[in-house]
Parts: sequence; structure tokens; C-alpha cells
Amino acid sequence: MHIDQFPSRLLENAVNEFAKLPGIGRKSALRLVLHLLKQDIQDVEIFGKSLIQLRTEIKHCRICYNISDTDICSICSHPSRNPSLICVVENIKDVMSIENTHQFNGLYHVLGGIISPMDGIGPSDLEIDSLVHRVNEGTIEEIILALSTTMEGDTTNFFIYKKLKDTGVKLSTLARGVSIGDELEYTDEVTLGRSIVNRMNFEESIIR
Amino acid sequence: MHIDQFPSRLLENAVNEFAKLPGIGRKSALRLVLHLLKQDIQDVEIFGKSLIQLRTEIKHCRICYNISDTDICSICSHPSRNPSLICVVENIKDVMSIENTHQFNGLYHVLGGIISPMDGIGPSDLEIDSLVHRVNEGTIEEIILALSTTMEGDTTNFFIYKKLKDTGVKLSTLARGVSIGDELEYTDEVTLGRSIVNRMNFEESIIR
Repeated sequence: MHIDQFPSRLLENAVNEFAKLPGIGRKSALRLVLHLLKQDIQDVEIFGKSLIQLRTEIKHCRICYNISDTDICSICSHPSRNPSLICVVENIKDVMSIENTHQFNGLYHVLGGIISPMDGIGPSDLEIDSLVHRVNEGTIEEIILALSTTMEGDTTNFFIYKKLKDTGVKLSTLARGVSIGDELEYTDEVTLGRSIVNRMNFEESIIR
Repeated sequence: MHIDQFPSRLLENAVNEFAKLPGIGRKSALRLVLHLLKQDIQDVEIFGKSLIQLRTEIKHCRICYNISDTDICSICSHPSRNPSLICVVENIKDVMSIENTHQFNGLYHVLGGIISPMDGIGPSDLEIDSLVHRVNEGTIEEIILALSTTMEGDTTNFFIYKKLKDTGVKLSTLARGVSIGDELEYTDEVTLGRSIVNRMNFEESIIR
């Protein structure tokens, strides 16, 4: 008799669970599980419980739908941020990326995805109605659409534009152009073409 | 105020815990945690609990020190395996690799590592005394040393050899040579040199 790959059901369960995560194959899963076996019991308990706690206790902010430990997130509840400027993003990672630039002082609205018929995601699956509702409350002056520059992103932008164009709110989008640090030789022609057409004042380009 | 990377302490904790695992950086950790956030609460609970259960409930076999759900593992307790032939390996992964070949019908002895002064691992940190004890019980006829072909592996082999050479047990090691499927051009010269010196009978080489 030869063991069926795993000498222990507990080990097999843990490997199976790890292998369900995206980008982690069975070999990596085994490596991670054997690593955990060598750690202190306490540390593994903290790890396991942190995942369960995350999933069971996390909330979504009632205003912007970003994830949060409280009913209203730390950005929406902060007194010095500008509530008349809203940046619409796809997900929480985008919030983190924009926060890391330290260039934005408004609030967010997290859609929870973008319109993607291929993945079965329609407008009603996203926080678009709640965005319209926020705009209708009257304090918002400008909406920055900061979605991916893909077909799905453009579709979602256009859908939101149609919903909001008669509300009087100003709609803007992220500047498109050659990335800072990029060589022209390797810039795609659509981006390059657009950035010639939409060329900007040189003096503005150096004030950053 | 800009959020310090994470909008939620729960999220940050979970990311920190994942990022402690070998080969998982903070970006991957965030990706995995956001994936878990999208799963059913039940599934995440099963995942977290499987890790805690693994670490708290797993045993080591009293005979071979392989990990096991029971006091004596399924290999040591199996009636049709040969208890007079013991394969000495570094860790449980090696047991699994050898089991997968379906070529070995003896029992194992899992050292739990190899002698490595650089990592502070000496003979007393390994299951070497228990191996000598098993041999002294008198039922073992042959010990196969199946450790890594590294300096640490050679050191450990030699240490075990010194401990067992007067017991009368037969000591063997894995065959060294050109890997099956390897091209000579890319075989390292030490391996190639040894495999010329230790050349084997052609008829034996084709009976597999």
C-alpha cells in the first residue's frame, strides 16, 4: 500500500483550501502548509482567526461603499476632506492607489466592479443608483470618473454619464497621456496620438 | 488626511498575516485577501479553521516521525510493508516524493531536517537518536540514506554512518547518475564523472 499523496487528512484539507486561492497551485499550497506546521500554535491561530474575522466583521461604508471597520469609513468621516468632489472607482484597490499618490482630497464612490456583459455584470450589480442618489442630494460639484481605460471602463463611464448629464454636476476623467518615465518608442500609438491632440501647456506640465 | 494604505484594520491584519508566508509579498497578500472577501462566509471559516486544526491536532508518528493523524502513521501500521527496510529522509515532502514513485515498500524515518551549522541545526535537533534506537531493536536489515546530495546532506549521511556502522545493519544510498531525460551536454561534470566511474550493467539499466 502506498499513501495516496497525503499521509494526513488534516494536511490534505489545509492544502486543498490553500490551493483554492487564485495563483496558488498544489505544490505552493503544500509548501505554505508545511511552513505553517513549523510555526507556533498561537501564530497559526492568529492567522486563521484574522481571516475569519475579516470576512465576518468587515463592513461597507454607507456613503462610499469602500470597505471599512465602521458604518462610515475613515475617509467619508474625515472633516478636512472635500465632500463636493467625488472620485468614482472600480474597487478598493483603486482607492488605495489614489490615496498613495497624496494628490486627492475629495471623497470616493466605489462601484464594486465595472459593467461587463461577458462576466454577467450589469449596471444593477454596481453601486450606480447610489451614486445618482448622492449627486441628487445636491452637495456634489464634480465627479471624477477614474475607471480602467478598457472597453468595459468606457462602457461604464458612458452609462454613468447618461445618468448624470442632466443633474448639472461637472463630470471629468483622469488625464490620458504618455506615462511619466516612459520612452516614446514603447508608447502605444493610441495613447501617443491622443496625447499629441490633447497636448498641454508646457508650464502646467512642469508644475507638479 | 490620507489613509495609511489600508481603510480597515481587519483588512490590514489579514494582509499582514498572509505576507508572513514565504514567497508572498504584500501585493499578493492583498490580492488573496480581497479574493477571500468575495467568498462565502462559510468557505472562509472552513479555510481559517482548517489551518488552526492542522496546527493544533496534527501528530507525529511515534515510530517514523512522519506527520500523521494517528499515533502510528498509515505507513508504519500497514501490514504489507516491509519493516526490515528503512528509508531515511529529511522531511515529509521527501516521503511524499518517494511514495509517488510506487517503487518503495519499506518504512521511513523522517529526520526533520539535516545537519546545518549555518542554520544552527545540529544532530541533537534531528531524529537521529531515535533512528539508532530503532536499529538497536534488531528487526531492521537495511537503511537507505535518501538525503539531499549537498554538503549538509553528506555531513548528515556521514554522521549517521558513524553511529550505525558497528550495528551490522546494511547501509545504502540512492543511486547517483545522469537523470533520466537529461542531455549529457547539460549534466554537471561531477555527476557525469561519477556516473562513468560507477557505470552500471546495461541489462540492469533497461530492466525497470
